[in-house]
Amino acid sequence: MKVEDMDFSLYVITDTDASGGRLHAEVVRLALEGGATAIQYREKRASVRRMLEVGAQLRELAAQHGAAFIVNDRPDLAIALGADGVHVGPEDLPPDVVRKIVGPDMMVSVSVDNPQDAREAEARGADYIVARPVFPTRWKASGRATMGAEGLAEIVRSVRVPVLADGGINAETLPDILRSGAAGPGVTAAVVGAEDPREAARQFREMVEAYKSRQTAGQGA
Amino acid sequence: MKVEDMDFSLYVITDTDASGGRLHAEVVRLALEGGATAIQYREKRASVRRMLEVGAQLRELAAQHGAAFIVNDRPDLAIALGADGVHVGPEDLPPDVVRKIVGPDMMVSVSVDNPQDAREAEARGADYIVARPVFPTRWKASGRATMGAEGLAEIVRSVRVPVLADGGINAETLPDILRSGAAGPGVTAAVVGAEDPREAARQFREMVEAYKSRQTAGQGA
Repeated sequence: MKVEDMDFSLYVITDTDASGGRLHAEVVRLALEGGATAIQYREKRASVRRMLEVGAQLRELAAQHGAAFIVNDRPDLAIALGADGVHVGPEDLPPDVVRKIVGPDMMVSVSVDNPQDAREAEARGADYIVARPVFPTRWKASGRATMGAEGLAEIVRSVRVPVLADGGINAETLPDILRSGAAGPGVTAAVVGAEDPREAARQFREMVEAYKSRQTAGQGA
Repeated sequence: MKVEDMDFSLYVITDTDASGGRLHAEVVRLALEGGATAIQYREKRASVRRMLEVGAQLRELAAQHGAAFIVNDRPDLAIALGADGVHVGPEDLPPDVVRKIVGPDMMVSVSVDNPQDAREAEARGADYIVARPVFPTRWKASGRATMGAEGLAEIVRSVRVPVLADGGINAETLPDILRSGAAGPGVTAAVVGAEDPREAARQFREMVEAYKSRQTAGQGA
């Protein structure tokens, strides 16, 4: 998938630590039914042999809903699963190396927390940037200060590629990140850790669409 | 590299846990000077970003000595490093999936501990098999019974591809594994954990060559 065809309206990251140990396939199915437009599969606890099985389920679910499927950390697994993209962080393979492994047709995205790293990731071929952590999260200790909406806006201004905002995004903070120019929200525990992931996704998606409608109306005025 | 061109005389596995925390590049350099013909890079503790740096050093050292360079676990890293091979275990991606990721020119090897798994690995495209654990090792608790020289011989008989013998191989057990039909010894702590890895490698290599000479002489008689 090309990044031009990517719908960033609601990018849901599934992670065992955030979903309270529920099955990835179950929370992802609900998130997709609620309106998720992209699914990132993040797993730090299972073997890659197991990830190959679970990833195939998620890949199929995403395809059924017309959503993008992204694999975290592992370009090799992304290739094996026919993923639309692979996402890497500062401890993973750098984006230019990932590009050589996965070829030209898979999206490569990179997590950054400052404008300099965002520019470097873009220069090394990242198709989009994940800015994180924007706000504090409860489920994952980052050990870093959060950038806030203003830090996010700086990252957005520093690159030409889309910037997804990740970390502590909820009903209160969503308008701020959209006003900051983020392509969309990346949410983890707020959806996959919700009691009702379908309803949580539905509410996020509704807020994003409402914001877009106001933007369009504003541009028309 | 094709497996036909692989020299199994002394296959040394470098692992931080086995080398007492010494630098991979240092113990590998000494092992190569002592006569290692192949190096497998195994690392469970560092980030893959770090492995990319260290792996590049090991890849270069191996090339300088005309030795094969194999990456454990990660096909993506093996591609990034231009490795000669990638090695996978039962928790990693299966060999047929690895083959699709790395293409036709990289060797794919698989660890097994019984003939049935050896046959399956061969059927799924493994270029060679690593039989382990043949004998008990001190540095790595396997939680499994060891197969012994007889179990190794069964695996050798069950497949047509070369079988490397790994686990507890030392001066006493080396003749047994060679008589069992192993292509060569895979050694970890016995070389990279030795006080003098160069001398340890030299002694292993000398024993292997002495065995081969006797074999050749025996065939000529």
